[in-house]
Amino acid sequence: MASERQLSRRSLLGRTAAVAAGAGALTATAAGTASAATRDVDVAIVGAGLAGLTAARDLVAAGRTVAVLEARDRVGGRVVNLPLAGGGVTEGGGEFIGPTQTRIKALADSLGVDTFATYNTGKNLLYKDGKKTPYATDGLLGSVPPVDVAGLANAAIVQASLDDMAKQVPVDAPWTAAKAQEWDRQTFETWLRANAVVPSAKFLMDVACTSIFSAEPRELSLLFVLFYIAAAGDESTPGTLERLTETANGAQELRFVGGSQLVPVKLAATLGDRVVLNAPVRTITRSGGGYTVTADGVTVTARRVVVAVPPPLAARIVYDPLLPAARDQLTQRLPMASVGKAIAIYDTPFWRADGLNGQVVSDTGVVSSTFDNSPPDASYGALMGFIEADKARELDAASEAEVRAAVLKDYVTYFGEKAASPTSFVLQRWNNERYTRGGPVSIAAPGVLTQYGPALRAPVGGLHWAGTETSVHWMGFMDGAVRSGERVAKEVLAAL
Amino acid sequence: MASERQLSRRSLLGRTAAVAAGAGALTATAAGTASAATRDVDVAIVGAGLAGLTAARDLVAAGRTVAVLEARDRVGGRVVNLPLAGGGVTEGGGEFIGPTQTRIKALADSLGVDTFATYNTGKNLLYKDGKKTPYATDGLLGSVPPVDVAGLANAAIVQASLDDMAKQVPVDAPWTAAKAQEWDRQTFETWLRANAVVPSAKFLMDVACTSIFSAEPRELSLLFVLFYIAAAGDESTPGTLERLTETANGAQELRFVGGSQLVPVKLAATLGDRVVLNAPVRTITRSGGGYTVTADGVTVTARRVVVAVPPPLAARIVYDPLLPAARDQLTQRLPMASVGKAIAIYDTPFWRADGLNGQVVSDTGVVSSTFDNSPPDASYGALMGFIEADKARELDAASEAEVRAAVLKDYVTYFGEKAASPTSFVLQRWNNERYTRGGPVSIAAPGVLTQYGPALRAPVGGLHWAGTETSVHWMGFMDGAVRSGERVAKEVLAAL
Repeated sequence: MASERQLSRRSLLGRTAAVAAGAGALTATAAGTASAATRDVDVAIVGAGLAGLTAARDLVAAGRTVAVLEARDRVGGRVVNLPLAGGGVTEGGGEFIGPTQTRIKALADSLGVDTFATYNTGKNLLYKDGKKTPYATDGLLGSVPPVDVAGLANAAIVQASLDDMAKQVPVDAPWTAAKAQEWDRQTFETWLRANAVVPSAKFLMDVACTSIFSAEPRELSLLFVLFYIAAAGDESTPGTLERLTETANGAQELRFVGGSQLVPVKLAATLGDRVVLNAPVRTITRSGGGYTVTADGVTVTARRVVVAVPPPLAARIVYDPLLPAARDQLTQRLPMASVGKAIAIYDTPFWRADGLNGQVVSDTGVVSSTFDNSPPDASYGALMGFIEADKARELDAASEAEVRAAVLKDYVTYFGEKAASPTSFVLQRWNNERYTRGGPVSIAAPGVLTQYGPALRAPVGGLHWAGTETSVHWMGFMDGAVRSGERVAKEVLAAL
Repeated sequence: MASERQLSRRSLLGRTAAVAAGAGALTATAAGTASAATRDVDVAIVGAGLAGLTAARDLVAAGRTVAVLEARDRVGGRVVNLPLAGGGVTEGGGEFIGPTQTRIKALADSLGVDTFATYNTGKNLLYKDGKKTPYATDGLLGSVPPVDVAGLANAAIVQASLDDMAKQVPVDAPWTAAKAQEWDRQTFETWLRANAVVPSAKFLMDVACTSIFSAEPRELSLLFVLFYIAAAGDESTPGTLERLTETANGAQELRFVGGSQLVPVKLAATLGDRVVLNAPVRTITRSGGGYTVTADGVTVTARRVVVAVPPPLAARIVYDPLLPAARDQLTQRLPMASVGKAIAIYDTPFWRADGLNGQVVSDTGVVSSTFDNSPPDASYGALMGFIEADKARELDAASEAEVRAAVLKDYVTYFGEKAASPTSFVLQRWNNERYTRGGPVSIAAPGVLTQYGPALRAPVGGLHWAGTETSVHWMGFMDGAVRSGERVAKEVLAAL
């Protein structure tokens, strides 16, 4: 067991993590930078998202000393609670969990964060060709929107094909699949055009694609899509496309009471002042038998380093000695997708009275999928819409007022005039966030996984890689982040 | 005209650019960093490659003050002379120029750097299926390797199709081509599989692809490939695939006497101490009406900033305020390709006596294309081989001795036992270069140009973008770099 040997000068710096356990966002109490603090720990962890915090938890439990360096003034990374004008919070980032997402669930349970069912009573709404069609979520076809019969049949075959192919992809090494080369040399769009030949089936797959990846089918390698489907399960349950897209029995099944960021906030609280906010890491330098990690305002020396930020941001740290080409070029090839979330708050979830569950699939507008994001007691109504892929990019440079107007226009189209006048409106645009620059997750174009996949997790000397992008289950989800933190902690402990 | 107002403390820092005009590499005289120097200029330029230096030249000629901040201890970027043990230099980066590359030619002329014809006398060599077949470069089929007749016919049709499609791509806005969406949703590999249906034709196109891009067809958007072909010409001459691949009348036609780096070295000499070496730029911050550019050891304030480094490296600078999402996400999506150059030096260019010009096209080995890189007087022989795409990546982690052994094995296969014993051997592995991390140029996967293309050159406030990746003619070549420097200087002058 390493001895505690922190040399922090936190009082001088005012960088104490102000842990408001059970409350909303975790914010720094001050941002003084009179002089650089130094710490000496066993493991420096870059990023206080779920991955970094989980790694820290496990390392501390094993008796190791850690420092978690977080660029933002809050913990949680891509998981964030946003305050509402009238009190309470809504969720600007990852919020749903579902079956087989056992590690995020276990973490939340351990911290006393409860879950509740995503509102799913009443009918979904298909908006297509200017027409609204409510449809049941529990029919013979599950919750597949009621397009023409030929389209439904085609979509069913396409879905089954994708699931079948995904079963042939080893989640821990997609590049070793027998057909890895064939699947990694084409875009998902190319494959869809050959297989989703009925227009309405192509429409359904396009909506599924943008909903899952916040990317268009042309941006994605087929192999990457298959891996992502395969990863939507756990050690004993193979992933399926349906588990990615569904609410009941799917990845959108449950939400967290108090908002998803409560999980990282409470987790950070258990770590106390091991978490340093407002500390973007600039350089990681090998020195002696360990590393020196330099962040704004604080320098940490450590025997091992865990980098738990998205790959394109990991690329922006200066490493000395420089990283192997495979790792560097990988981080040049895993861009963040493009996503925003728009949440409109109303006095009541009025769509429920119309027999609707608030879930829309649309072929138009800036928001093509929505959810009822109201709190469990429905003390107010919240409509959450995803702004995804091309639509997110089209609005990147728009003002917040312009986005609001476009989103509310869609909500009125889907749910009627009452949607025009929310009591408040919250917008989270991940593309414009300095420490994410897109979302929800990195994507891979053709050729990336087969050539660079092995560099995703391979440690480089004493540098270890975490973050949801490195997970073999639920990559892209909170669960994958937690799993990556648990895996990297084991990896580091075995090496220390 | 702005007044000269440099506040440099160069003597303190020892950062004077040691300009050895006419000599080999430009190196810093010292690397002291006792305290940060400051400069105040009209325009700060990030990167002293051909783009940045050309921009500086034009801005200075217009009476503006500039500071060119270069991360390396030399100028030239992807253009570098490497010293040979026995004296003289060989070229580790860009070295060839050809017809319609008028701007690099004019620049070299203005600096008194002469050209000479790439050695092209005698026969090319096809090595395929374990068999060597010499073939004439001036036959009916140009220098198309002598594969089976069906393959030649197929390859001719494929080449004509690519050229025809390329003619429909506006070089200044490929995303506006009538078929841009269709071409940008598929990989080049997908298109080749549908069109280069004869195996030997596919082989020829694969070799052309890796030779041109140092990337595999699966990594590239068809639209990007068509743009690159279209860009292989000038204002009055449409680009063609043949101009990219050929030696005579093609992009490999001429070389520079003294080595290609002489051009940036002599250009830097005209700029004197405006060029600061060993100064990697870390942050670009808007302040007042201008910008503060912070590099290691030197801080520059400027009214405008030109960033003239490859997009994935531009992404690693910290911008404050942060860049628009479109620009940031673009830089996440233009990775460097993968390339190395291996140059073996012999007492004589012995292959010439065998009637060979030193140019090989091969279906095996780590080097699948070679050139006779001997000096104009043939006082010694030099065989240069490209290590490209998958083959470069396979060798990224290999030792120099391992690479040397693999390369010389190939050279013996192609040119006989004499190739086994070079008098010296020079290896330049661009993937492992901190300030390039790949090469020769950024590549675009499907979906990038149509969604992010406009952000390639669009200025962001007072920030302007240069580098060969931003050129509408000869993107990826020295000529494109020079053109981008000229364009950006005009852009900045119009704005100042």
